[in-house]
Amino acid sequence: MKFKIKNNIFTEAINNVNRALSTKTPMPILKSIKMNLTDEGMHLTASDSNITIKQFIPTYINNEQNIMIDEIGSAAVPGKLLLEVLRKANDEYVEIAMFEEKFIHINFKNSDFTLNCLDVREYPNIKLISTNQPIELDSNQLNEIIKQTVISVATSETRPILTGVNIKIQNNVLHCVATDSYRLSEKNVSFDFELPDINIVVPGKSLLELERLLVNTKEKVQLHLSNNMISFKMDQIIFQSRLLDGNYPETSRLIPKEFGLEQQFNRQELIDVVDRVSLLTREGATNIIKFDIYEDKTIISLDSPEIGKVVEEVHPLQQEGSLIRIGFNSKYLLDALKVLKEEIVTIKFTGEVRPFIIKTDDDSLTQLILPVRIE
Amino acid sequence: MKFKIKNNIFTEAINNVNRALSTKTPMPILKSIKMNLTDEGMHLTASDSNITIKQFIPTYINNEQNIMIDEIGSAAVPGKLLLEVLRKANDEYVEIAMFEEKFIHINFKNSDFTLNCLDVREYPNIKLISTNQPIELDSNQLNEIIKQTVISVATSETRPILTGVNIKIQNNVLHCVATDSYRLSEKNVSFDFELPDINIVVPGKSLLELERLLVNTKEKVQLHLSNNMISFKMDQIIFQSRLLDGNYPETSRLIPKEFGLEQQFNRQELIDVVDRVSLLTREGATNIIKFDIYEDKTIISLDSPEIGKVVEEVHPLQQEGSLIRIGFNSKYLLDALKVLKEEIVTIKFTGEVRPFIIKTDDDSLTQLILPVRIE
Repeated sequence: MKFKIKNNIFTEAINNVNRALSTKTPMPILKSIKMNLTDEGMHLTASDSNITIKQFIPTYINNEQNIMIDEIGSAAVPGKLLLEVLRKANDEYVEIAMFEEKFIHINFKNSDFTLNCLDVREYPNIKLISTNQPIELDSNQLNEIIKQTVISVATSETRPILTGVNIKIQNNVLHCVATDSYRLSEKNVSFDFELPDINIVVPGKSLLELERLLVNTKEKVQLHLSNNMISFKMDQIIFQSRLLDGNYPETSRLIPKEFGLEQQFNRQELIDVVDRVSLLTREGATNIIKFDIYEDKTIISLDSPEIGKVVEEVHPLQQEGSLIRIGFNSKYLLDALKVLKEEIVTIKFTGEVRPFIIKTDDDSLTQLILPVRIE
Repeated sequence: MKFKIKNNIFTEAINNVNRALSTKTPMPILKSIKMNLTDEGMHLTASDSNITIKQFIPTYINNEQNIMIDEIGSAAVPGKLLLEVLRKANDEYVEIAMFEEKFIHINFKNSDFTLNCLDVREYPNIKLISTNQPIELDSNQLNEIIKQTVISVATSETRPILTGVNIKIQNNVLHCVATDSYRLSEKNVSFDFELPDINIVVPGKSLLELERLLVNTKEKVQLHLSNNMISFKMDQIIFQSRLLDGNYPETSRLIPKEFGLEQQFNRQELIDVVDRVSLLTREGATNIIKFDIYEDKTIISLDSPEIGKVVEEVHPLQQEGSLIRIGFNSKYLLDALKVLKEEIVTIKFTGEVRPFIIKTDDDSLTQLILPVRIE
């Protein structure tokens, strides 16, 4: 393998696939990026065995030559170090050559790096799934769905199925749900074209990595599914994740339909207040904030006998219903408010010990929080 | 104690004194800032018992009122939390009031914080030293002296005296030296006015904190000395540190006076090269780089059998003397190059296993590095 490549294109691609690299792995080869250079271009693969990312760099893009190929071939190159070297490369092109099947040369300007490589034949054969009828989504839309639901996945492994987001399609409606059993995020999107019915659970960690990749993508994304895998195909990048095994709990009945009290707030103002109130929690105070809702004002407070307390007076833009006093984890509210986009949010309460929901004009999304009993 | 204060002025002062706060301390009271409000203004004190920082906020600055005093008094307030609250305060003024001698109220706009406080009478009585004949230095100059020498203080406590910078004044010349016995930084500044003779060792950690304070100061700094303390007085801030006990080793004979080889480099270009070569050290490779000096080029390289190697070819701007091959810690060279200001640097070698020095047009500063034997 011997070639010359445009450094900015190569660095960006290595940076993309690097997201799948293991830092801790029983298989040292998974710290490597697999390079496979054909006449058509460079195929890059990285995997931690849960997530696999592949990227292709075509030899030519729009008649412009990105890779000057001397000799095709493949190699398993230490991914983190390669990325650091490329980032410091002060030249438009880098020259890369494999030699003795165990060293890779990286040349630019007056610099000459030689990195030890593992045997590329040890690299596991990772199959990418592909179906004839992929589901096509807009990348921005997919990114928003992930961002707005993944906040509620469980971080503890007590119930492994809850560490994922449940993605269902029924009657051309996409339902996405995540819950750690203290809060829940639900997003429902209708499509005006035919979609196959599915019901899968994708690990939250995988979706967080996918979200970072999607930020730079403006293309359509194709979803391919198998029994235990999901694959997201973009123009030159494929992101594949294993699915979680098991049945996701039925959550639709958890979301209340009738409410005793509704309050409207300016979203950013409410974020600022909850953010200030949460200051005390950093010093180890409880993270339970209370809303004391009166006719003319709402008192938001947090009380920690060891550290101190904070009291904020807020005035909802609108309010209707019976007055209550309710306590819950301030982080859940902050997380939920931060992934919304709309200026105005409505909090809909059912009762002092019943779940409440946060809604905006965008009816596709529901954020639900379970309160805790307060004295 | 009850007062109202301009929040930006108060926040900046709390931020300044906070640098002296202990995070880990056997004395919980040292996590507090001592506030003492008199009619003249607010005196703030923080200390970790090695470093003490005091700042004064006058009630009036240039006829403008910063503090509206209702009641003078004092308090010991949790410093970190106070700073975080002030930073999030969305108002021009904050109102502060002590009550029941153990709570402090912080009010602004619709927010009302109450922080638990310790008994201010428990706060240790920290004496600030003061002499009739302080030494007056320009703060920029002092900052530069610290920055350029403190890089070489020892980080290990094997020889505690080496964790400090030796500051000497003899015959109106200020000599500052730091060495961890592998490298050495020496700065000599002559003054055209009378200075008292001194010979002290100031902890490197104290000087690093002082440096951060000095960055925002354009004033003169007064040095006050006692047997075991040094105090740096700025306009409204006093920074005091204990001194290290013991005799600093004599270092003047360590710096070679005659050289077998001199090389001139563009400083930034050399930094870039050494920075790239050092990439491999992050992955656990040796940090010994080699200079192979030839007539027409210098090969800078780092070789680590487990990880790989890197070879860079550089061309000195000028070179004179006999050709050598020398190896040393790449971090020492990077540290030394980065605290210089001049565009051009000269490396003066004595021999392959003898110390070499880095100089610029600014003859007041010498950076010395000890090489290691290479095969």
